[in-house]
Amino acid sequence: MKTPGALLEAMRETAPLVQNITNFVSMNVMANVLLAAGASPAMVHAREEAAEFAALASALTINIGTLSPPWVDAMKAAAKTASDAGKPWVLDPVAVGATSYRRQTGAELLALRPGIVRGNASEILALAAEGGAGKGVDSGDTVQTAEAAARAIAGETGGVVAVTGPEDFVTDGARVARVDNGHALMPKVTALGCALTGVVAAFASTAEDPFEATVAALAFYGLAGEKAAARAEGPGSFAVAFLDALATVDGATLDAGARIA
Amino acid sequence: MKTPGALLEAMRETAPLVQNITNFVSMNVMANVLLAAGASPAMVHAREEAAEFAALASALTINIGTLSPPWVDAMKAAAKTASDAGKPWVLDPVAVGATSYRRQTGAELLALRPGIVRGNASEILALAAEGGAGKGVDSGDTVQTAEAAARAIAGETGGVVAVTGPEDFVTDGARVARVDNGHALMPKVTALGCALTGVVAAFASTAEDPFEATVAALAFYGLAGEKAAARAEGPGSFAVAFLDALATVDGATLDAGARIA
Amino acid sequence: MKTPGALLEAMRETAPLVQNITNFVSMNVMANVLLAAGASPAMVHAREEAAEFAALASALTINIGTLSPPWVDAMKAAAKTASDAGKPWVLDPVAVGATSYRRQTGAELLALRPGIVRGNASEILALAAEGGAGKGVDSGDTVQTAEAAARAIAGETGGVVAVTGPEDFVTDGARVARVDNGHALMPKVTALGCALTGVVAAFASTAEDPFEATVAALAFYGLAGEKAAARAEGPGSFAVAFLDALATVDGATLDAGARIA
Repeated sequence: MKTPGALLEAMRETAPLVQNITNFVSMNVMANVLLAAGASPAMVHAREEAAEFAALASALTINIGTLSPPWVDAMKAAAKTASDAGKPWVLDPVAVGATSYRRQTGAELLALRPGIVRGNASEILALAAEGGAGKGVDSGDTVQTAEAAARAIAGETGGVVAVTGPEDFVTDGARVARVDNGHALMPKVTALGCALTGVVAAFASTAEDPFEATVAALAFYGLAGEKAAARAEGPGSFAVAFLDALATVDGATLDAGARIA
Repeated sequence: MKTPGALLEAMRETAPLVQNITNFVSMNVMANVLLAAGASPAMVHAREEAAEFAALASALTINIGTLSPPWVDAMKAAAKTASDAGKPWVLDPVAVGATSYRRQTGAELLALRPGIVRGNASEILALAAEGGAGKGVDSGDTVQTAEAAARAIAGETGGVVAVTGPEDFVTDGARVARVDNGHALMPKVTALGCALTGVVAAFASTAEDPFEATVAALAFYGLAGEKAAARAEGPGSFAVAFLDALATVDGATLDAGARIA
Repeated sequence: MKTPGALLEAMRETAPLVQNITNFVSMNVMANVLLAAGASPAMVHAREEAAEFAALASALTINIGTLSPPWVDAMKAAAKTASDAGKPWVLDPVAVGATSYRRQTGAELLALRPGIVRGNASEILALAAEGGAGKGVDSGDTVQTAEAAARAIAGETGGVVAVTGPEDFVTDGARVARVDNGHALMPKVTALGCALTGVVAAFASTAEDPFEATVAALAFYGLAGEKAAARAEGPGSFAVAFLDALATVDGATLDAGARIA
């Protein structure tokens, strides 16, 4: 078993090409977060090229934040290409419970068996068809209430599920971990959850164990948030310091600061 | 009548879910501005779900900055849902005079009677079909030249119209207010006008009087701009400090700093 | 022949309206960069209005970063309008070698003879159909390896080609220049290359000689990067300081700091 810091260093050495089919709100932040963390992002979502590009990329993320029919086609084709090639793909079911279009698309993507699913508690609950109180992108439920739903999804996909919040919960059906890094300013910056999904994919593309990769990525992300918060005076300066921190935290710092149980 | 500060505090207590059908340039900024101000943003614009989501949201904004036929369909459907449910929706007619596609879409949306319209002087003039010298998103006209156009639009919709610029002008046809808060760096950051429209919607969703809500939102926004400018060395650092200021200005600070005539 | 500083001041005096058909990742940054530099940006890409708007704009940029069939139609129509009106249009062939859709679209746009092409080495190599090692948006090739490809493209279009990297290379087929301004943090912020394309267009719209305009824009951009890096602690604070620097560098500073050979 590798430490989170060792997984971070391994990811940075490769600078994996992470393809993201993600919502319009998050694209810029997600690219900057991946660059700062040490990966190489590419936003390629067109039906005409998404699957072809997935064959080149080291990992893929699919985020349902802003859907349209051609994008849903591209998502499915790219997910299949990634799965067939044995590359990790990560599903981010943004606000999946809010509309029937999202519920349907979320279910269709889940059926393609994402290697990892990352969402907030309301999203994981809705994806497991157990309801969920979040109507928008913010979670109205606690992480704890979504633990059973996370296990159920992991049982269905055979993959990893991460429920993120004040304390994150990660399971692959058999193992369980809780990551206590992070800061209250993080949900005050839009798309930091979406961008985290990209970091999870980057770690997963260079680690052997997707469960370990997910846990390490969450600890890294949360620790960078803590470092940034110490220098911030509000959400604006926090977002800036967060990118600086993602580029600064190294393997040793991560191993010293990770709070994983 | 409530003070601007009381309206700000009331908005924050509810953290209203504001749905935005807005242009690609503004999505991220608008979400961050709404989060910093204390609201809960959601960018939901797909024809397949926009109207369904409008039934969940507390307020809706429609911004014509980057149009396409499926989005125009979604805009109309969402506007009707909001109107039918008695929820405020705010029209932002970005560069409405620049092309025939925008002029037509602007007119069609205006016919659906937005509760509030917010634009710069060139946009309000063009929307009232009185010309306007702005070809792009920047205004080539002064606020004063658009006052009559604003009154005409308010007469047509029965709603509120705000013309923003160095000094903002607000009217509901009967009442008139001028808001003198703001700073010259604000138009040097892209999409701050678009994001303001979201803040107006957030205030309107929790206030009884849309005219008062609009005036309070403009004063709040301009005051945050003044606070930010005091700490900025250019448009980059201004944008960061502005988000911090939106999260920091409270009701008492707003009531002390608002310059409304 | 005018100095870079004189060209900068001339651009700022006009505040040219630059239309950008660009990818979703870059839109916000590109607009902020153009505003900070002193131009007036407009993101207008819909098939229903792009060509009509091109008749109003002073310059046009076309970036293939996130393609779709209606956008490709709009790109071609807008490029033709700009060409017919004798206005400069600049092609940014983002990741053109990555997929067949990009290769085809890149070739079709090149056939419309852009006045200026700006890309990294891998992109210029791929556009000239000489391969290129970059699979994503980051370059896997050195600027030097793409010099012959740049000359070949310039010979085909009759225009200017710029290969940007640690040291930039510019040619119009006859003349050659190398610009040594810049900083290693610049490729760590997403879309700064895309945004540079907009600045090149702004300079070209107000200069007589597109070759001189391109060289001046690259020196200006790189110098702002150097000033920003002196104040940055990572990619987040660099991006903020960079916008401040773009607004601060004036003609005299540029002439003193430009390193052009």
